[in-house]
Amino acid sequence: MQRINASIGFDRKLWREDIEGSKAHAAMLAAQDIISADDAAAIRGGLEAIEAEIADGRFVFKTELEDIHMNVEARLAELIGPAAGRLHTARSRNDQVATDFKLWVRNALVRLDNDLKALQGALLNQAERHASTIMPGFTHLQLAQPVTFGHHLLAYVEMLGRDRSRVADALKRSDDCPLGAAALAGSPYPIDRRNTAAALGFARPSANSIDAVSDRDFALDYLATGAILAVHLSRFAEELVLWSSDQFAFVRLSDGFTTGSSIMPQKRNPDAAELVRAKTGRIIGDLNTLLIALKGLPLAYSKDMQEDKEPVFDAEETLALALAAMTCMVADMKVNTDSMRRATDRGYVTATDLADWLVRTLGMPFREAHHVSGSLVKQAETRGVQLYDLSLDEFRAVHAAIDERVFAVLTVEASVASRTSEGGTSPARVREAVAAATTRFL
Amino acid sequence: MQRINASIGFDRKLWREDIEGSKAHAAMLAAQDIISADDAAAIRGGLEAIEAEIADGRFVFKTELEDIHMNVEARLAELIGPAAGRLHTARSRNDQVATDFKLWVRNALVRLDNDLKALQGALLNQAERHASTIMPGFTHLQLAQPVTFGHHLLAYVEMLGRDRSRVADALKRSDDCPLGAAALAGSPYPIDRRNTAAALGFARPSANSIDAVSDRDFALDYLATGAILAVHLSRFAEELVLWSSDQFAFVRLSDGFTTGSSIMPQKRNPDAAELVRAKTGRIIGDLNTLLIALKGLPLAYSKDMQEDKEPVFDAEETLALALAAMTCMVADMKVNTDSMRRATDRGYVTATDLADWLVRTLGMPFREAHHVSGSLVKQAETRGVQLYDLSLDEFRAVHAAIDERVFAVLTVEASVASRTSEGGTSPARVREAVAAATTRFL
Amino acid sequence: MQRINASIGFDRKLWREDIEGSKAHAAMLAAQDIISADDAAAIRGGLEAIEAEIADGRFVFKTELEDIHMNVEARLAELIGPAAGRLHTARSRNDQVATDFKLWVRNALVRLDNDLKALQGALLNQAERHASTIMPGFTHLQLAQPVTFGHHLLAYVEMLGRDRSRVADALKRSDDCPLGAAALAGSPYPIDRRNTAAALGFARPSANSIDAVSDRDFALDYLATGAILAVHLSRFAEELVLWSSDQFAFVRLSDGFTTGSSIMPQKRNPDAAELVRAKTGRIIGDLNTLLIALKGLPLAYSKDMQEDKEPVFDAEETLALALAAMTCMVADMKVNTDSMRRATDRGYVTATDLADWLVRTLGMPFREAHHVSGSLVKQAETRGVQLYDLSLDEFRAVHAAIDERVFAVLTVEASVASRTSEGGTSPARVREAVAAATTRFL
Amino acid sequence: MQRINASIGFDRKLWREDIEGSKAHAAMLAAQDIISADDAAAIRGGLEAIEAEIADGRFVFKTELEDIHMNVEARLAELIGPAAGRLHTARSRNDQVATDFKLWVRNALVRLDNDLKALQGALLNQAERHASTIMPGFTHLQLAQPVTFGHHLLAYVEMLGRDRSRVADALKRSDDCPLGAAALAGSPYPIDRRNTAAALGFARPSANSIDAVSDRDFALDYLATGAILAVHLSRFAEELVLWSSDQFAFVRLSDGFTTGSSIMPQKRNPDAAELVRAKTGRIIGDLNTLLIALKGLPLAYSKDMQEDKEPVFDAEETLALALAAMTCMVADMKVNTDSMRRATDRGYVTATDLADWLVRTLGMPFREAHHVSGSLVKQAETRGVQLYDLSLDEFRAVHAAIDERVFAVLTVEASVASRTSEGGTSPARVREAVAAATTRFL
Repeated sequence: MQRINASIGFDRKLWREDIEGSKAHAAMLAAQDIISADDAAAIRGGLEAIEAEIADGRFVFKTELEDIHMNVEARLAELIGPAAGRLHTARSRNDQVATDFKLWVRNALVRLDNDLKALQGALLNQAERHASTIMPGFTHLQLAQPVTFGHHLLAYVEMLGRDRSRVADALKRSDDCPLGAAALAGSPYPIDRRNTAAALGFARPSANSIDAVSDRDFALDYLATGAILAVHLSRFAEELVLWSSDQFAFVRLSDGFTTGSSIMPQKRNPDAAELVRAKTGRIIGDLNTLLIALKGLPLAYSKDMQEDKEPVFDAEETLALALAAMTCMVADMKVNTDSMRRATDRGYVTATDLADWLVRTLGMPFREAHHVSGSLVKQAETRGVQLYDLSLDEFRAVHAAIDERVFAVLTVEASVASRTSEGGTSPARVREAVAAATTRFL
Repeated sequence: MQRINASIGFDRKLWREDIEGSKAHAAMLAAQDIISADDAAAIRGGLEAIEAEIADGRFVFKTELEDIHMNVEARLAELIGPAAGRLHTARSRNDQVATDFKLWVRNALVRLDNDLKALQGALLNQAERHASTIMPGFTHLQLAQPVTFGHHLLAYVEMLGRDRSRVADALKRSDDCPLGAAALAGSPYPIDRRNTAAALGFARPSANSIDAVSDRDFALDYLATGAILAVHLSRFAEELVLWSSDQFAFVRLSDGFTTGSSIMPQKRNPDAAELVRAKTGRIIGDLNTLLIALKGLPLAYSKDMQEDKEPVFDAEETLALALAAMTCMVADMKVNTDSMRRATDRGYVTATDLADWLVRTLGMPFREAHHVSGSLVKQAETRGVQLYDLSLDEFRAVHAAIDERVFAVLTVEASVASRTSEGGTSPARVREAVAAATTRFL
Repeated sequence: MQRINASIGFDRKLWREDIEGSKAHAAMLAAQDIISADDAAAIRGGLEAIEAEIADGRFVFKTELEDIHMNVEARLAELIGPAAGRLHTARSRNDQVATDFKLWVRNALVRLDNDLKALQGALLNQAERHASTIMPGFTHLQLAQPVTFGHHLLAYVEMLGRDRSRVADALKRSDDCPLGAAALAGSPYPIDRRNTAAALGFARPSANSIDAVSDRDFALDYLATGAILAVHLSRFAEELVLWSSDQFAFVRLSDGFTTGSSIMPQKRNPDAAELVRAKTGRIIGDLNTLLIALKGLPLAYSKDMQEDKEPVFDAEETLALALAAMTCMVADMKVNTDSMRRATDRGYVTATDLADWLVRTLGMPFREAHHVSGSLVKQAETRGVQLYDLSLDEFRAVHAAIDERVFAVLTVEASVASRTSEGGTSPARVREAVAAATTRFL
Repeated sequence: MQRINASIGFDRKLWREDIEGSKAHAAMLAAQDIISADDAAAIRGGLEAIEAEIADGRFVFKTELEDIHMNVEARLAELIGPAAGRLHTARSRNDQVATDFKLWVRNALVRLDNDLKALQGALLNQAERHASTIMPGFTHLQLAQPVTFGHHLLAYVEMLGRDRSRVADALKRSDDCPLGAAALAGSPYPIDRRNTAAALGFARPSANSIDAVSDRDFALDYLATGAILAVHLSRFAEELVLWSSDQFAFVRLSDGFTTGSSIMPQKRNPDAAELVRAKTGRIIGDLNTLLIALKGLPLAYSKDMQEDKEPVFDAEETLALALAAMTCMVADMKVNTDSMRRATDRGYVTATDLADWLVRTLGMPFREAHHVSGSLVKQAETRGVQLYDLSLDEFRAVHAAIDERVFAVLTVEASVASRTSEGGTSPARVREAVAAATTRFL
């Protein structure tokens, strides 16, 4: 039973928050004359001593004391005697653990935001450097249209920006403090919940005491945010794996994030990227774990809710690791611009530009232009050449009104330069976007 | 192939958004002189005709035309001839479908908010009516402390309030318009993306064209919001199932939401509540479906993303149904106040009040008071009576300083009335909370 | 990078299997004259020394050596010198880790089967004791028909029996040995894969070397089996929580598996049952973790597959704990037979028996009998009595042909005794079923 | 309420099984003299008439009759009068729906097995044709060692073989018939459950009536089998997407399973493969849906269990479609053998063969041989040539004992031919494996 019941093996991670919460609670109890100033001082002193013991690794956690709260309280009694017994006035373990864990999650959200910002920074650096580096844009993993590498990286900056807005929303939504809800019904003592809420950095006390001890939305918000973020990272990780394959050879990851083979020197297994991709499963698994644990639970507190911490702790460690690895990989990766450029010389990636030219210059309806462009591509394909290798006569054979201005749109450079719509891939737009993103995000 | 590839079976649901998007696009093309005013007018007229045909059920959807976009475009060509071919200038199916679906999800979010508000309204009604109706509060499904039924219901009002804040966040986060991203690289035409964004009710155009066509975060936000909401509903549904059991008998659900048995007249199977509880699995399943489909997808558009719609459509229908059922069940349920009150006369639910009295009146440390209260409860249990049935002498035998004032805290009414801390269960606080919630939410 | 890449933190759990696999491989290499008998003896000796070091806790695991394989191999080199370098002939880490992990999972399946059997044993014990203990059977958590408690427990014996058949199937399906697949293409050495397969307890070598190193089906089988089992346990855990509530009071869990409250002596929070219920989320989460990690991975080995172990290890520990807790709870629980019996005196639980009597004795079509029975129940309800409290005249007023034999079917004892169909709840059938299940499962 | 409660919208799919079950039940009732032969004949006749009506599309399903059982029974009453009321003797909707759905799932398993076999057949065809077609084998999507394409395809034949063994296990595990369990307690009529079980193709009646109506393991087995299978398909689909990219160009999918672009003729978007990959999310979502719906349900039947059908129906349709698409894609795909072969001329894919040669020929310990091979590869890389382009002197400069026999192992053809271990990639082994698999699976 002790093995299934005790949570100290993982909830010790909450020690800072537990002590912080107790300090705030004791100070409020004294301010409200619920306990004496002397007792409050003794409690504060004892808690600070315990804080130092844990920080120094001198504290002995005991499984028979079950959880972090009882470990701290028992030690406090050893240190300061009966006054320790007054600390638990007007609170219960139910509001205490909700407060501790919420504080921890809120700190984790702040760290997550920093990690996301760091990855955005690394991406923006590379995006600026490669604002005009041409690569093939893909749809269905088939060559589609040329884009710039900077433009491609900025797509991830946007995704991460949305992730950060989820973090900000989660922080705002978790801004009410459970402390003072007591077991579930509130407290008969003249406590001041605004005092403790403020001391712990919350905007306000929670509005309903039953909800306060039954709610784990803040943990679900963390995990849902993490799961969507993990999906974003998995997409970039997949691209890194593809790009560092011999077939693509678009980037070379640094030694730090690949594993070699002593016999195949060219082999640079993109292990870190693969692990980031795989760990998506883990974060989604963590989200499921908590959603399912909470499904169908009657109010108020049930022991089922003790299963809230491990998935969040696991997700937090995993995301920190994944984001750090990604940030370093992005910062260190060597971009093989030749290889990227060469890859655009296949697949008639400017066929759409040709169609667009027919529309704009000759006033053709787009669907017809599309058809003319298709005929020309087929001709080029038959001859095994690119579109710009066709002669003007060959163009005119398909449509008599085509003139030599057409050649200006057939190069990938021209194609990229022409995509000047807002958010488009032209190098000027990309540089503008890097500047705007730097302002918005860094 | 057609069977696996065609999406018209489900994406026809996007018809309004598809036509709305096309109208905005055509108007902008005309405003920017990319197409003529005549063509724009013809397109607009054709689209309105199609809109009427679909609304009237006269439109024939064709599987061989694959999706809603081609079904509409093909019909437009039939109606207005070659000008139809100019509509697709400066856009592609990639930005078109992203826009359509985003518009649809945003509308669904608005509907969801309304449904949540309606359920909050029903709960607030009952909460006001039962602000002082006493029921046992449970932890671990064991009797813990008395609370009021109104207070209990307000816990759900808070949960739904957080759900609504997620909806609001999702709306804010999906406020940039993909239209104009074209296939993935942006457009070479002098389009005005701010124009179309505004016409379609978005705050701005999306900042990066590759992200615009690859992003399905708005659908994930919908599903994550839905999954957390579904967990909330499942908790309430579980309580309704418990409460309407013969063992609890706290509420009687209306005939409309139970199924009877022609031979067991007392049998009122809480089918609707059970279905709401079960459908949690479905919404979490839908969330998983899309998270997994997107995992590891390279940019930009891949056909995998066509799997984005069905889980969202399924979740939307399921949530609409579940919320409507819940709102009616709450509005119609009969509360068995006697049964609730009687259930508090077991389990020594005021033992904590006794301990708190010892602390407040006699200045005992809480942990010691806890112990004294425990001894008294054991004595009452041995005699088979409630705490308030003990004589003053019996109290004094355990602790000499106890006086007759103690009896004032031993009734469940006194217990409930004493919990006056902010967010607590005292009827005065509950009435205050109902008023505050009405202002905040309705 | 080391932090994200190193697996020694968790894969050290495979040490026994890693050494076992290496011993079998070395012996085979010697038998096939690929290495000398002397080298094989030195390797064997070294491996046994390492085995002892790890078992005794003297072995120092090094993160810089990354995984269990390199930790063991590096230590072997220290102990026996260059001969250690011959151990890796004709194998690679890819087939090595697949073999190690498969061996571990197979051992875990055997342990799981034992744990399931122990729980079945505890259930059968209680079922025998309570073969004729009457309790209300529920559907929709509403009183339905009386059953015996033994019969109810046997339902779980059946579920666990299916779980065990899944375990047996998983063992059979994982009976081919990956060793000898080498990196992915097989080996050019004259190895004897049947030799190593047999030495490690497999039925045969795997049929395809690429599949051998890419396959993690055995881990998925473990997790899928665990997830279904966890759902079974969650249903029983839910019932224990309900049954030990004050409202039901059907069972009293032992102190070992509840937590009390020092002030509410009747409070016996069913913590262990709640945790078992909650941990369902965790096992389903683990299953998702691996399914998602493997989704879309090209062959052969990818580093993503390193994410296979932690979910399985977590599930294994969780299931072992949950099954042990359940087995003890079942063995120790006190059944409140009075309370169970009393609960059947409500709800007209023999109304169906009355209808069946009408069919059998008077030859009424079932649907009509159903209707007559319903009328009588309504009458009893109106008067606030049970069916057997009605007079014969009252019965006859509804249907003239009813005679006094009807009373024989109206008691819950008669109802239960009459359900003699195969698998039915009559005490005789239940005793028969206990005997049969004992033979089938123990 | 009707909208959330009625299941006829989806459970009409069970019509054949419902009628089949009723026929068997009526025949048994007559054989046991529980109903008359005349009534049984009337019931049979009526059911056959209904069967014909539904098959012909003449039957009108009514939502107000809620489910398939009541729709059929009500129609039966219209057709044959009061005798219809005798059909429901000794059964309830609980055992009826469990039987219907189990029959349906068992039929679906048989269809699934056929579909899996068909895909194995297509793979074996291509494997035989390409038993000696050389392609690069990848690990980490990096070039590793040469293999044959046939060998690679056989890996999938093995995976599908395991899937089929799961199907077979599921069939075996679902071989007991719920019919006769009645509502939950069994029946007081002298029914013969072995009779109905046999008539419906089950091996035996279920052993416990409560389990019989509460169990949905058979549906979970279907979904778990489907989820693992879907992961297998997703891996192959990912490879098809990669292989049909311009960067790999290993295969050309047929027009039937790609979508082109009218302007980029080379564009063959592998839509079907992408959809198969994406639909993995859906099947895993379906599995979660049911696992979660069942979590924590007390026995016996709860309405939650009505949520069992839609995920299974969805999975069944999805898998049938995905398997059909895959089978056609495999049968039709054109293999670009030149491109595959050319891809092996990079990456020093025979470096391991060199190391193995050093071990076998010169008796070097493998770890040393590994090192020597590494030095030679580095030298080749520096010169920009392949290993076989180095001169013997260059080899000897690194290790003096190397002689000209070394060249025999440096070609990819020699490498592949040398991997003759059981399950290895040598063409002889592959042909052997194709023959063996044909015997095992077709």
